[in-house]
Amino acid sequence: MNSEKIEIFDTTLRDGEQVPGCKLNTEQKLTIAERLDELGIDIIEAGFPVSSPGDFHSVSEISKLVKNAKVCGLTRANKKDIEIAAEALKYAKRPRIHTGIGTSDSHIKYKFNSTREDIIERAVDAVKYAKSFVEDVEFYAEDAGRTDNDYLAKVCEEVIKAGATVLNIPDTTGYCLPEEYGAKIKYLKENVKGIDKAVLSCHCHNDLGLATANSISGVVNGARQIECTINGLGERAGNTALEEVVMILKQHTDLNLHTDVNSKMLNKMSTLVSDLMGVFVQPNKAIVGANAFAHSSGIHQDGVIKNRETYEIINPEDVGINESSIILTARSGRSALAYRFKHIGFDVTKNELDFLYHEFLKAADMKKEIDNEDLHMMMTAFSRKIG
Amino acid sequence: MNSEKIEIFDTTLRDGEQVPGCKLNTEQKLTIAERLDELGIDIIEAGFPVSSPGDFHSVSEISKLVKNAKVCGLTRANKKDIEIAAEALKYAKRPRIHTGIGTSDSHIKYKFNSTREDIIERAVDAVKYAKSFVEDVEFYAEDAGRTDNDYLAKVCEEVIKAGATVLNIPDTTGYCLPEEYGAKIKYLKENVKGIDKAVLSCHCHNDLGLATANSISGVVNGARQIECTINGLGERAGNTALEEVVMILKQHTDLNLHTDVNSKMLNKMSTLVSDLMGVFVQPNKAIVGANAFAHSSGIHQDGVIKNRETYEIINPEDVGINESSIILTARSGRSALAYRFKHIGFDVTKNELDFLYHEFLKAADMKKEIDNEDLHMMMTAFSRKIG
Repeated sequence: MNSEKIEIFDTTLRDGEQVPGCKLNTEQKLTIAERLDELGIDIIEAGFPVSSPGDFHSVSEISKLVKNAKVCGLTRANKKDIEIAAEALKYAKRPRIHTGIGTSDSHIKYKFNSTREDIIERAVDAVKYAKSFVEDVEFYAEDAGRTDNDYLAKVCEEVIKAGATVLNIPDTTGYCLPEEYGAKIKYLKENVKGIDKAVLSCHCHNDLGLATANSISGVVNGARQIECTINGLGERAGNTALEEVVMILKQHTDLNLHTDVNSKMLNKMSTLVSDLMGVFVQPNKAIVGANAFAHSSGIHQDGVIKNRETYEIINPEDVGINESSIILTARSGRSALAYRFKHIGFDVTKNELDFLYHEFLKAADMKKEIDNEDLHMMMTAFSRKIG
Repeated sequence: MNSEKIEIFDTTLRDGEQVPGCKLNTEQKLTIAERLDELGIDIIEAGFPVSSPGDFHSVSEISKLVKNAKVCGLTRANKKDIEIAAEALKYAKRPRIHTGIGTSDSHIKYKFNSTREDIIERAVDAVKYAKSFVEDVEFYAEDAGRTDNDYLAKVCEEVIKAGATVLNIPDTTGYCLPEEYGAKIKYLKENVKGIDKAVLSCHCHNDLGLATANSISGVVNGARQIECTINGLGERAGNTALEEVVMILKQHTDLNLHTDVNSKMLNKMSTLVSDLMGVFVQPNKAIVGANAFAHSSGIHQDGVIKNRETYEIINPEDVGINESSIILTARSGRSALAYRFKHIGFDVTKNELDFLYHEFLKAADMKKEIDNEDLHMMMTAFSRKIG
């Protein structure tokens, strides 16, 4: 079976920038957009043009800069938002307007004080209006995760008729379980008339730690686009982490799905975004955390030294990291110690290692990590003793 | 249907401490263990006693201290490890020995240079030996995620016969997809003779960002224990995050599963572990990140101000946070600005707000976040203008 492509829609510059205190200036946004384009992203969501003059300017400049990716601007379902987005996108080679409205009963009642029928009308009007400016119109059904499947299918049908090319099904509150989210996508794929004319898109939030699993469940069930951010940045607990979905599809060839992202750039991309946004990545973050490929326990180190694949499924080089690390702590075993001594030029015999390991454990119980300098000191003391 | 209990096995002090540079001293470990006991954890894995004299001492002291939880010590499948663990656990009210061995072909071949038959023999011997010291013996089939289901079932059958009370099925490399991990648990539940005599346990790693989803898939398919750490700490990309699985089971009452963890302590617990281990939690970490309940975009803020449940599924108080935050940035709308002005004592009219919002946007395009001091300054300038 031929592998099918999943489009990667990066929203680091829009939903990602909704992290409190993360505001980027236009120059910083241009730096990120240029790299995203090189990374092989299919669609770059550049901003929400109506939200502020600064954001309008950024979307406009990004539109001029980006060479390959589609450039997308967010709007609410009203004329002014759409006009301003179209204006901001006018220099884009492949512009996309992303418009939409809340479809869950909670949003219809509390946010819009409206009715289901009225919401469909507003949705259709917005898509038609966006379509008068650009060919490529993505519709988001906000809070789709809590929207009844039959009503959601009806909304989808109507916006496809109005010209929507992509249907974004957001789990806005991050509440869905993977099976539930996948079932929703499957239901739409099977029940929406004209669904073959549009691409279903997953947009998941990480409030329960399930954004990545939900997105994968979505594409397994028929979605063909994933909306995500570098480092999983975004409102509250953030969005689906781009690096995680890309690496899952790369590692799990059994899913017969792939992306065009150049995974070797992931580590640098993560660092760039973290530095410019000033939001640190925790060391135990999957794929791009500082410790993602670091081994400290004796059992694990011993296994990795014998054969990398014992404990590592991803080759660190595939995400742009030179090698996995063997960190020396009180949990390390003899083989790790011998490995690190060898690394700094000492081939120790088994007897030497017995003595050195004893000294090492005493030191490691006092100190969090034993570094190369400590090893040199240990070796000097040892040489004096036997010399 | 009555809700079934899922036991929470915390391994912050063992697998969590395998984070490079995270070494805790005994006093720090005792502080964490005492709080875990108050949190309502069922089993505290206190350490790997044979690994160093310091770790032995910690396990021993924790055994004396803990009042309610079972206290567990890790071993490899050999007599020395088991004897030392039994010694370290001798003061525990409810001791558990956690022994095991690698069962995947990769581990059998590269790590042990052994055969499938020999591995079963070693596993059975280890469980029997542990059983001669304590009643409660948990067996781990390391790298179970990559172990053939039929062989894994055979290993499980034999160790149950030898007296194992819990079967830990680790996805050691963090490679499984949720459906695949759930199917493995289901297979064992349906095919292992005597499975009703033991509890199946999920132990997942987060290399692909799927540890939480895999653990939930495990309990949905019949496992009744989850092994996890505070903040998802652990080797490489870490373990399943305790706070995430606890809150998923609390929010998704449709799963008919619950834990005895007091969720209101989760936020404090996270801070304590982060401080003592010196490993920061990224702001966009689910449940316990600084921004997990912070709203900065205008659309979201407007919704939350009208009705909290529009964008929040978890009540922040349920995890020990006083209230959700409305952060003012260039993405904020008029309702957020009015809300925050009200918060500092100013009820502004619609006309006043129109003017103030314009001033606010100019300021917010220059500054990442507008704080209360900025609001007071804006109001003073405004009063002078109209005064």
